[in-house]
Amino acid sequence: MFVTLIDFFIFSIIAYQSSFHVAMKIVLIGAGNLASSLAPALKRAGHTIPQVYSRTLESASLLAEKVGAQPLCDFALIRSDADVYIYALRDEVYKLMPAFDCRPDAVHLLTSGSVPYTDLKESAHRGVMYPFQSFSKSKPQTDFSSVPVMIEGEDERAVSIIRILAESISGKVYDSTPQSRVRLHLAGVLANNFTNCMYALAEEQLRDAGLPFDILLPLIDETAAKVHFLSPREAQTGPASRHDFEVMKRQLLLLPDEEQRSIYTLVSENIIKSRR
Amino acid sequence: MFVTLIDFFIFSIIAYQSSFHVAMKIVLIGAGNLASSLAPALKRAGHTIPQVYSRTLESASLLAEKVGAQPLCDFALIRSDADVYIYALRDEVYKLMPAFDCRPDAVHLLTSGSVPYTDLKESAHRGVMYPFQSFSKSKPQTDFSSVPVMIEGEDERAVSIIRILAESISGKVYDSTPQSRVRLHLAGVLANNFTNCMYALAEEQLRDAGLPFDILLPLIDETAAKVHFLSPREAQTGPASRHDFEVMKRQLLLLPDEEQRSIYTLVSENIIKSRR
Repeated sequence: MFVTLIDFFIFSIIAYQSSFHVAMKIVLIGAGNLASSLAPALKRAGHTIPQVYSRTLESASLLAEKVGAQPLCDFALIRSDADVYIYALRDEVYKLMPAFDCRPDAVHLLTSGSVPYTDLKESAHRGVMYPFQSFSKSKPQTDFSSVPVMIEGEDERAVSIIRILAESISGKVYDSTPQSRVRLHLAGVLANNFTNCMYALAEEQLRDAGLPFDILLPLIDETAAKVHFLSPREAQTGPASRHDFEVMKRQLLLLPDEEQRSIYTLVSENIIKSRR
Repeated sequence: MFVTLIDFFIFSIIAYQSSFHVAMKIVLIGAGNLASSLAPALKRAGHTIPQVYSRTLESASLLAEKVGAQPLCDFALIRSDADVYIYALRDEVYKLMPAFDCRPDAVHLLTSGSVPYTDLKESAHRGVMYPFQSFSKSKPQTDFSSVPVMIEGEDERAVSIIRILAESISGKVYDSTPQSRVRLHLAGVLANNFTNCMYALAEEQLRDAGLPFDILLPLIDETAAKVHFLSPREAQTGPASRHDFEVMKRQLLLLPDEEQRSIYTLVSENIIKSRR
């Protein structure tokens, strides 16, 4: 009987912890690619989103409708009673933003990889919640729980509120600093934007060969799959990796211009050096 | 009754066509990454592999055992009665290969992206069967049916035998030419080897930021997934794509050396031009 009571007690604590949840009132400032995936994730986590701001009412309405929010295109209409203001704007806009009224204990956070939170004018409780993924309006992220989210805060209140918020939508929350966040952003540019550019250069070659781009997809998928269990340097193969200068010389001649030949040479040199 | 008979007749034809299969006797020359995925696929498709040759008996045995073949490390012991000889060797080896006896109607094919089939000395019936995927011994390709396979042949016999062989293991068989195959190989270097190098440069940044490489995996997967439904140029995002020269200038300063800064500048310029 005594054991049963303790069991019940422990069970209650675990049940309480796992259901521990602070529902927040969040105003979302921005209705672009990131906001379009973030808003539904916040909603699913039990938060309320009374307002969505965008530069145009049309774009605000498109997202606001999906989460039962009021669409806005005027900063003066932003409610002052929210717990959290999330900014998901283009980087250059932050410094130009007009001030608006809000509770002094409200937390203001931005979601960019490269903007310091000091660009937010509004509050003593500023910080960052940076979801590290490529988002698009046309295909909103349906599973936010696996998206890594970096958090930063200027003071203790900001950090703790942002941590609770981030953990309510993602199972992968990491502390970042302004320094580590910009490096992570650069890593994202290399692994996403530059990788995509390599796909584009490959597509040009296929077009010249009269072959469809689809032929590349199994290889592209395998390249991504491989680094789930090998480090990129271990997974490296190809002519540069095996120092096959004959093939490299011939491939250089197939490239259409000096720029692409320089990219080919420099990337090959990087691979060659890493294999010495 | 009449309809039923026709139905039966049509059914028989379809059943005959779909089970149409020519089992071939294949000697495999090479036991590396590609051969290790190809041999089991050929076996599963009903072909027999009496012998596997490799430079060392140890490596020949490892693969031969898996497909019930005799391992060899001596060209003089290669059987002369095979239908097909498949060469999966390093590119530079082909020209150095000794001759061996074989049936005059046997087909000889190589599996490389960049070697012309005229490098094969053996036969009047020469050609290529180039599976376009990145293979590794440690993780053999279990589903060969989705691997794109390019085929080429010097004469009609070579082309038809290689086509039957390729279609018995893959659902994606394409005709190539020496010209289109080298372009496809270059496309593979760009989309696989160079993409992997971008992952490696990203990993360096994460290490400097004190963050684990795992953080990148969802983004890497999404980048690959996106070009399944958008062309790479349509899928392009990032600072260069939106002409954000402020961020680009700051990111350049985070790179460790001149080589990486040049890669960053050149790839960014390529993206900028494509977005004009």
